[in-house]
Amino acid sequence: MKINLKDSKNLSMMVDFHELATAAGYFSTGKADTIAYFDLFFRTVPDAGGFVIAAGLEQLMDYLQNLAFSSEDLDFLRGKGFKEDFLAYLENFKFSCDVWAVPEGTPVFPGEPILIVRGPIIQAQLLETMALMLINHQTLIATKANRIARAAQGRAVFEFGARRAYGADAAFYGARASYIGGVSASSLALADMALGIEAVTTMTHSWVEMFDSELEAFCAFAREFPEDCSLLVDTYNTLKSGLPNAIEAFNRELTPKGYRPKSIRLDSGDIAYLSRKARKILDEAGYPDCEIVASNSLDEYLIRDMINQGAKIDAFAVGERLITSASSPILGGVYKLSAVEKDGQIIPKIKITGNVTKITTPCVKRAYRLIDKDTGKAIADLVCLADEQIGENEPYELFDPDYTWKRKTVENFIARPLLQEIFKEGKLVYRLPSLDEIRDYCTREIDSLWEEVLRFENPHKYYVDLSQALWDKKQETIAQHRKL
Amino acid sequence: MKINLKDSKNLSMMVDFHELATAAGYFSTGKADTIAYFDLFFRTVPDAGGFVIAAGLEQLMDYLQNLAFSSEDLDFLRGKGFKEDFLAYLENFKFSCDVWAVPEGTPVFPGEPILIVRGPIIQAQLLETMALMLINHQTLIATKANRIARAAQGRAVFEFGARRAYGADAAFYGARASYIGGVSASSLALADMALGIEAVTTMTHSWVEMFDSELEAFCAFAREFPEDCSLLVDTYNTLKSGLPNAIEAFNRELTPKGYRPKSIRLDSGDIAYLSRKARKILDEAGYPDCEIVASNSLDEYLIRDMINQGAKIDAFAVGERLITSASSPILGGVYKLSAVEKDGQIIPKIKITGNVTKITTPCVKRAYRLIDKDTGKAIADLVCLADEQIGENEPYELFDPDYTWKRKTVENFIARPLLQEIFKEGKLVYRLPSLDEIRDYCTREIDSLWEEVLRFENPHKYYVDLSQALWDKKQETIAQHRKL
Repeated sequence: MKINLKDSKNLSMMVDFHELATAAGYFSTGKADTIAYFDLFFRTVPDAGGFVIAAGLEQLMDYLQNLAFSSEDLDFLRGKGFKEDFLAYLENFKFSCDVWAVPEGTPVFPGEPILIVRGPIIQAQLLETMALMLINHQTLIATKANRIARAAQGRAVFEFGARRAYGADAAFYGARASYIGGVSASSLALADMALGIEAVTTMTHSWVEMFDSELEAFCAFAREFPEDCSLLVDTYNTLKSGLPNAIEAFNRELTPKGYRPKSIRLDSGDIAYLSRKARKILDEAGYPDCEIVASNSLDEYLIRDMINQGAKIDAFAVGERLITSASSPILGGVYKLSAVEKDGQIIPKIKITGNVTKITTPCVKRAYRLIDKDTGKAIADLVCLADEQIGENEPYELFDPDYTWKRKTVENFIARPLLQEIFKEGKLVYRLPSLDEIRDYCTREIDSLWEEVLRFENPHKYYVDLSQALWDKKQETIAQHRKL
Repeated sequence: MKINLKDSKNLSMMVDFHELATAAGYFSTGKADTIAYFDLFFRTVPDAGGFVIAAGLEQLMDYLQNLAFSSEDLDFLRGKGFKEDFLAYLENFKFSCDVWAVPEGTPVFPGEPILIVRGPIIQAQLLETMALMLINHQTLIATKANRIARAAQGRAVFEFGARRAYGADAAFYGARASYIGGVSASSLALADMALGIEAVTTMTHSWVEMFDSELEAFCAFAREFPEDCSLLVDTYNTLKSGLPNAIEAFNRELTPKGYRPKSIRLDSGDIAYLSRKARKILDEAGYPDCEIVASNSLDEYLIRDMINQGAKIDAFAVGERLITSASSPILGGVYKLSAVEKDGQIIPKIKITGNVTKITTPCVKRAYRLIDKDTGKAIADLVCLADEQIGENEPYELFDPDYTWKRKTVENFIARPLLQEIFKEGKLVYRLPSLDEIRDYCTREIDSLWEEVLRFENPHKYYVDLSQALWDKKQETIAQHRKL
């Protein structure tokens, strides 16, 4: 069969086969319409960090609103042995679940639900693959971008990763997630065109090589792009030829015409050292406003080191290590059954297993962020039963769900619900924020976290506690299974 | 702006903005039609391995055949300040380059060209982002899959990565690349539907939890899928409940009806230990043909360890660590100008820089694999000038391009061209092999490498040598730039 790059957009079949098989199984065992609850959550944070930045919800909403099965899909499934009544169900598929989710840009912590789905199990099961894929991917990249942006301490960070991205979606949605996390621009034209993320330009080595000399190449570039003149100075020798030629080109082609250079870019060698030298040379040549951009396999650790070494860098172009979250490339979000409705009752569901960390928390839940009224800082997150009320006007005793003797009483707090209602019976009830609103919200949310939670190494473990009622229900459910 | 999941398929704008700016610069400086040569190659191998498996060419061919700029693209670029004559050029864009490439499935080594483009520089420049993205991604994943498949020593490996993939392209083309590298099946429905890669199914924990007991869940599954009954036995306790219940379900629902179970799956706990126990229990229960599938964050190292520990596993389901190449998630392929044509002459082009490993090899090149006529094994690869003839009937002296005193004379060899002609003046002249042909070819190619090249730790550094004529040209080009 001839395939082409559009094939990967058949999103109805972008699903693990066992979701389809299981859905068919629910259909023929009469369980299809059983109302089930699933939680999506993370167990660990990439790079041993303190939290992740939730992202990807908008694309999941788009997927859920448009999910439909084509006749080609049905023919394929027919050939795989699926029965006609199930295929008829798919043909008339209509999404009717309730969905709650944490808004994009929210810092979230291990163990708390960031997406809750309630609906007929046949539907809630089918959406697992895409929900995990979209949220795992963008959350991973937004988190990495946020680390890198924080390491840059206010200097600009550009996302330059397309050429090392895992395909077009990884490049495009990676640029989106990077922007949410705090990156300010992208190299990708489509990120500008479709998302409004400023596309930054740069110079290629090949441009320099296409002219008879580096100086000629720089002069031609300056004439071509006088308002956006950013020169790459390392094609031959940064200090001996690149910088003197750049200054000569500025002197010849920009200054006489009233233009100012934008930047030079360092892409190899000892960038911390070269940047200090370059800063001095540019200042002395009358170009203190010419910025210095650094690139070459950067990440938050290298950026932090460069700044510590007094590097004179105004902007960092970050590519492969951002777009792949290279130092920690997996975000292991999972999607687990937490309850079903039966005869008007809610029955908690649990997975136990030998790995204690893989035991799930059953029941229909909500999550709150407790915020200190005086400092505006986040104190802890509380996961509780959906019908519990958290009284803000009385002291609340938190306790560690594993080490229950670790207790802390909080007062004078606001309990802010973490999850918003997104779909109600399949209908979108959430106002989609703009990308800039998401990014600004993320910045404000980061400001609400204590420094100790934000640091890269050994961050303080932020409290994600269960309410007493939820904790009791969990123990009760485990005990019931022990008896079985 | 409302965006949706289809937006990432606007591939004409899936390009780094500086490629467009540079192309516009070539256009207005009168260089657009200068014939240029670019090489795509890698400098290092992921996981410190000996080689990579080339993949992604078919998608690049598809991109090049279909590249066209829409009126929306042109409006966007107009708004960014691009000039009308350049936009008119894009509007009438017609791909007219020559392209040579290594067939998919070929093991390739650092420093040798795996894709060569010859054509008007404006075109050759514009395709850089997608060429690198497509080939870096699929080559990375095919290479990882090949390592994992070799670690499994003939046991089946299933690709289960969709939920941790970096978006839909990463899942779909990741499944394709994994198959090329030697994985035998995928969890992704679309990989089966569009690529013919067998979709394997499995059971979810939620299925088990949806029934009143594990036994009931297993029996229902066995009734539903009697020919494809693969049970997940770790929801509560693998040895105490999962296995006994699985056997009971086989006894009740399959054996009396003449069916045999397919497999059980272990997804947590000490899998090496559990697999030996499970094997014994299944054998004693009369199910020696019931296979054992292992999953849970596996990669080539864990698989090798499990096999060394005598694990009784028939198939490995590998997810997140394959689809992200987690232990080494970046393949740093680059695309570099190597020559231009001027007045009928070929002018070599080079990038020098302070990092010696980043100095490029100039000139229009070809590459050959020298194969021993007696053993059929690959001896070395030779990169030479495009017009050089390699005489197979006389001894050939190879030498290390860095340590030129390291020399070796080879005799009795076949010099097989590595690069095939793909496009001639923009016209496809290559017969696209089927995915199974690519996969079989990859297997044969791996067989032509010595064990020392194949091993994971400290593999023998396979020779990729330059011909004397190419080496001389490189030194001459460096010397010319020293004089500048």
